[in-house]
Amino acid sequence: MDERITRLRERIDELNLELLERLSERAEVAEAIGRLQTELGLSHYDPVREKAMLDALVDANRGPFEDATIKSLFKQVFQASMQLEVEQDKTRYLTSRRTRYVDTVVTVRGVPIGGEHPPVLIAGPCAIESYEQLDAVAAMLATRDVPLLRGGAFKPRTDPYAFQGLGLPGLRLGREVCDAHGLGFVTEVMDAADVVVCAEHADMLQIGARNMQNYTLLRAAARSGRPVLLKRGLSATIEEWVMAAEYLLAGGNEQVVLCERGIRTFERFTRNTLDVSAVALAKLETHLPVLVDVTHSGGRPDLLVPLTKAGLAVGADGVMIEVHPNPAVALSDNKQQIDFEAFDAYLEATRYHGRLSPGRTELYGVEG
Amino acid sequence: MDERITRLRERIDELNLELLERLSERAEVAEAIGRLQTELGLSHYDPVREKAMLDALVDANRGPFEDATIKSLFKQVFQASMQLEVEQDKTRYLTSRRTRYVDTVVTVRGVPIGGEHPPVLIAGPCAIESYEQLDAVAAMLATRDVPLLRGGAFKPRTDPYAFQGLGLPGLRLGREVCDAHGLGFVTEVMDAADVVVCAEHADMLQIGARNMQNYTLLRAAARSGRPVLLKRGLSATIEEWVMAAEYLLAGGNEQVVLCERGIRTFERFTRNTLDVSAVALAKLETHLPVLVDVTHSGGRPDLLVPLTKAGLAVGADGVMIEVHPNPAVALSDNKQQIDFEAFDAYLEATRYHGRLSPGRTELYGVEG
Amino acid sequence: MDERITRLRERIDELNLELLERLSERAEVAEAIGRLQTELGLSHYDPVREKAMLDALVDANRGPFEDATIKSLFKQVFQASMQLEVEQDKTRYLTSRRTRYVDTVVTVRGVPIGGEHPPVLIAGPCAIESYEQLDAVAAMLATRDVPLLRGGAFKPRTDPYAFQGLGLPGLRLGREVCDAHGLGFVTEVMDAADVVVCAEHADMLQIGARNMQNYTLLRAAARSGRPVLLKRGLSATIEEWVMAAEYLLAGGNEQVVLCERGIRTFERFTRNTLDVSAVALAKLETHLPVLVDVTHSGGRPDLLVPLTKAGLAVGADGVMIEVHPNPAVALSDNKQQIDFEAFDAYLEATRYHGRLSPGRTELYGVEG
Amino acid sequence: MDERITRLRERIDELNLELLERLSERAEVAEAIGRLQTELGLSHYDPVREKAMLDALVDANRGPFEDATIKSLFKQVFQASMQLEVEQDKTRYLTSRRTRYVDTVVTVRGVPIGGEHPPVLIAGPCAIESYEQLDAVAAMLATRDVPLLRGGAFKPRTDPYAFQGLGLPGLRLGREVCDAHGLGFVTEVMDAADVVVCAEHADMLQIGARNMQNYTLLRAAARSGRPVLLKRGLSATIEEWVMAAEYLLAGGNEQVVLCERGIRTFERFTRNTLDVSAVALAKLETHLPVLVDVTHSGGRPDLLVPLTKAGLAVGADGVMIEVHPNPAVALSDNKQQIDFEAFDAYLEATRYHGRLSPGRTELYGVEG
Repeated sequence: MDERITRLRERIDELNLELLERLSERAEVAEAIGRLQTELGLSHYDPVREKAMLDALVDANRGPFEDATIKSLFKQVFQASMQLEVEQDKTRYLTSRRTRYVDTVVTVRGVPIGGEHPPVLIAGPCAIESYEQLDAVAAMLATRDVPLLRGGAFKPRTDPYAFQGLGLPGLRLGREVCDAHGLGFVTEVMDAADVVVCAEHADMLQIGARNMQNYTLLRAAARSGRPVLLKRGLSATIEEWVMAAEYLLAGGNEQVVLCERGIRTFERFTRNTLDVSAVALAKLETHLPVLVDVTHSGGRPDLLVPLTKAGLAVGADGVMIEVHPNPAVALSDNKQQIDFEAFDAYLEATRYHGRLSPGRTELYGVEG
Repeated sequence: MDERITRLRERIDELNLELLERLSERAEVAEAIGRLQTELGLSHYDPVREKAMLDALVDANRGPFEDATIKSLFKQVFQASMQLEVEQDKTRYLTSRRTRYVDTVVTVRGVPIGGEHPPVLIAGPCAIESYEQLDAVAAMLATRDVPLLRGGAFKPRTDPYAFQGLGLPGLRLGREVCDAHGLGFVTEVMDAADVVVCAEHADMLQIGARNMQNYTLLRAAARSGRPVLLKRGLSATIEEWVMAAEYLLAGGNEQVVLCERGIRTFERFTRNTLDVSAVALAKLETHLPVLVDVTHSGGRPDLLVPLTKAGLAVGADGVMIEVHPNPAVALSDNKQQIDFEAFDAYLEATRYHGRLSPGRTELYGVEG
Repeated sequence: MDERITRLRERIDELNLELLERLSERAEVAEAIGRLQTELGLSHYDPVREKAMLDALVDANRGPFEDATIKSLFKQVFQASMQLEVEQDKTRYLTSRRTRYVDTVVTVRGVPIGGEHPPVLIAGPCAIESYEQLDAVAAMLATRDVPLLRGGAFKPRTDPYAFQGLGLPGLRLGREVCDAHGLGFVTEVMDAADVVVCAEHADMLQIGARNMQNYTLLRAAARSGRPVLLKRGLSATIEEWVMAAEYLLAGGNEQVVLCERGIRTFERFTRNTLDVSAVALAKLETHLPVLVDVTHSGGRPDLLVPLTKAGLAVGADGVMIEVHPNPAVALSDNKQQIDFEAFDAYLEATRYHGRLSPGRTELYGVEG
Repeated sequence: MDERITRLRERIDELNLELLERLSERAEVAEAIGRLQTELGLSHYDPVREKAMLDALVDANRGPFEDATIKSLFKQVFQASMQLEVEQDKTRYLTSRRTRYVDTVVTVRGVPIGGEHPPVLIAGPCAIESYEQLDAVAAMLATRDVPLLRGGAFKPRTDPYAFQGLGLPGLRLGREVCDAHGLGFVTEVMDAADVVVCAEHADMLQIGARNMQNYTLLRAAARSGRPVLLKRGLSATIEEWVMAAEYLLAGGNEQVVLCERGIRTFERFTRNTLDVSAVALAKLETHLPVLVDVTHSGGRPDLLVPLTKAGLAVGADGVMIEVHPNPAVALSDNKQQIDFEAFDAYLEATRYHGRLSPGRTELYGVEG
């Protein structure tokens, strides 16, 4: 190594330590300001002040860094300091595993989901169509020890003229049939105005993919007193999905279950692409239970078993699946629902015994 | 050509004509059934009957086609016949250019959008933050002959703790400031329960990308008596976007403007990817005006002018853009809003003169 | 049911059967033509003939179907007949499970991959950088019973000025070190001109995601006499991926292993999105072994274990992973390679014992 | 404002300036080291040194920042300093507009593309199929003053059994027919081994989307002595696309034209999604001409005119389009090629007169 370089590097080393010293003192002062702001009820973030600081730095900058570089470097410093202020106040997000390390267990009509409980199965038709149809499904599920029935009374449909669900009569049907067979009733709510009536009839409210960022609905569901199943939006990032759950927790409802149902990609062989990384990351970043919807993610009966296994392998706390007495004549989703025979094959392939077999027994993550 | 092949091909030709004859008669009979069903108020689609027909065909099938192929071929025949029945009843979709060939013109406080009118510019801040802020923008727009101001009183935010807009006071501010400067007021409505109050204060209601499939909101907006600006969802297909507009028209509101605002793709240099094909296809398939939102699609000030030009070139009826007196301190979207100086540069680059310059003067499409 | 409808439906039923009869005869004639064409070495597909038939049908069409509908229906018929001709000749694609039902087992230096063999682990650094580096990795792998080492001598790099690999000296290093520790050597080949030299030094040739549709390279690799590991392109559909493998089999090489390595989506928390459905479908549709590359799909060390489990759960025949003595100073991919300590944690978490634990023991698919 | 906060903020201001002073000195020292490294032929980037500096800083860190934050902040500083070193050596990338501000003009058989020249039209069949077919196209183009003919002799096909082009006879045909009609000949090269023969016969070599990152081919094309048309990969980011062009320039070929041809998205109404932002950004970031391929981006004849207009509006230097005497019987791409009548309608709709009408006359970008 050239000696001139060695000497210059020694000067760099000194400057590094001087920078560190000032960065640390600056952070301490920022923390003190943060405490005062909290005390006085002031916001931590003050963009006018930030702009003034950047202007002063640019004025003082004599090179060799360009002004834009100086601005960018100091914005990093500001951001890191702000982060400190925020963290000292509180660990901000209620959904975060840093706020609550222990797994949340959500209980639906006595059925626990999450934590150490083996994965749960939620099954039923896409839409509630008639007493006969729903009763047939419920009777079948009860004999197979499937504890929770899903079925929609309000159906979100792309086409305004398509079957939109039975509405309130569907809700009543769902409640009656589930009671008759001792099942918990999970149903989708699409409208803040329907939350109360859905909560009266159902044991768990589902918020669908298209409504993941319907904040009015999220706030109403938060006040419903019922556990909520929150599906990931079709092209929602994991961060956006978790933030949608944050609306529910911030609204006072801690009984929240996340549900991955496939994301929209270029692939044509599947309806959507099940994102198992999202399941794993949702489990790592939040304390909430996470399910996978194997019907909507693949959109193909031949993928139900492998996607179930993949979901459980990454730690999903349960699975949702659609089953119908006669899929060929179903009023919606008739290509992807399976009949009772196929459902029994599914239960056998996944070795179902009142619970799915857990996919994992240890914590993953090789970095600690 | 081998003579044996020639002879076999002659038999094929005969069979083709025999098939055609029976297909045509079948279609006529199906039409007759369709007329009776309409008369009797019955649904055209009867999945049980369809299943019975397929079962009978499969029973009768002696090869060489596999049963699945026969089913698939006849499903095509059924679908084509059904299509005939549907078309004879009515041209189904109200948004379709086949239902209404003439361009719809939507009028917002006297400002016409669509048809032969040159493209309109809608500008304003992301969020209404204060009287001073909004008045500054409105005064500036008025002197530049920009007729419509956009500004949000209710803001959809990913993070539940972020600034969510001023709410009702923001609506009042918007109305007051727009009246003072003679501007039309465009504002987003996020909640069916807010539609009435938004419609009282604003001249046009915007439905944002996240709410494109919030059907409750669409139905409420349909009844508002106000023109509606419907943004395309982040990953909505063109078909889903047009179907969302169909909810508005089916609900009785014909004053609907579509707005393309970029779709979510893998590209990292832009916030979203402006889909100009969607603008062109929305113009071809529907009779509604179509705008492009150049702020959200690129997310970069240096793309505002080129994306405006691209949008106008494919026939957009107007452009939405965000402008703020001091973007650095804006409470939302502060990286993508531009200041007044940049806005003037934008107007100059696009040769603005109370209207944008139309990008096209002829009908496109080389297929007729 | 109205009696008029009943009578009309009876006529429909008759017409259905008449259509079936003619479709079946037409198919038999088409098969006969197909046999003659095969005999005479003629192509089955004759677009000029197809156009003539369609023109004749359109000429004869007297409604009520529109000409376009008639064309579309008959194209379905033509396609179905063509399919028959093709299938009677041969089950077309060599990769298809219909051509060969039994799982292909690929053997790399005595290590079998696929079929009933438990999943294999392939590990090593992104790039071969030096003797010390590679020897350290190889020695470590040998003591953990990992049988196959991966390491690139030719590196595809987005930036032309980035480290492009050691080239031939890297190949020699790989061979020497693998021999010294009794490992099989897997390395990427990027250029048809390098196939021979790579095949001389390595036990298995890898074709990277960017080269999945580099047909020259595929053809050269087919002639190499070495097993080939074919990665899925970043945005290749499953069909395109399988067709790329078909190039290898059509070129005479049956020793092909597929490798899913994540697809490009909008998600920002992960580098790519592991598509487990693609693994499942590749196993269902082809007889080839399928691996998952857990390093590139997630791009995050904390996802290595869950993605491994997900991949194995859907039936992957093995896993690829990157490990480096000191990732912080690696010449490429230094954020996603793990060090030896993390690798040992990975082996423990996945219960590695010379083979990974298979994720499944039965055939999936509920449709039979 | 609370006075305690004011006093603390004054201390922050002092610390900011002290940080700035040390950052600037550090940058000067780093520049000096950079000059020495260049002098001695050493690499600027030394990951071992970087790791040592970070370790020393972490050792010295006494809070309140966490070690990870300190590492992250200093990595930003290192990166900024490295950037300075790199920029003082040379503006690194040959494709960058910072390296060469003036637009590059590429000349193909006397036809200039780029700079102030009005946009060029390149037209022709997907594949060269026969003398009659190509001669018909060439004669037609010549009478319409279209100067450049495209036509593939080597065709990249997903299916290994599909028509792969005529090969060398196709090249000869292309040369002969183009000479006869006074046209320039543009053809795709798929294989480094074919570059010489393609360069002998053609006036411009096209590198297709699937080969955008086939670095061997890029390097060979760089040495061909012919202008190169580089298509963007199906899911290549703009950065990756520009880097692929950098391979060509770094290999000594400055006659490079970029071509946007649509990216792969979820949308089903179009084959691909034309990304006009990419055209605009490629023009802003590089000095190379940029074309749009309107046939492959939309995959629909009814989008040819609007996509042409959109491309030209954002500053494209030309357009590629496929035209065939009888698309219905074309051996490839037969759904998206247009016939001569449709081509004439296209020329009229785009007001073609030996050149397309430029879409813009001023520089865009509102940020200066």
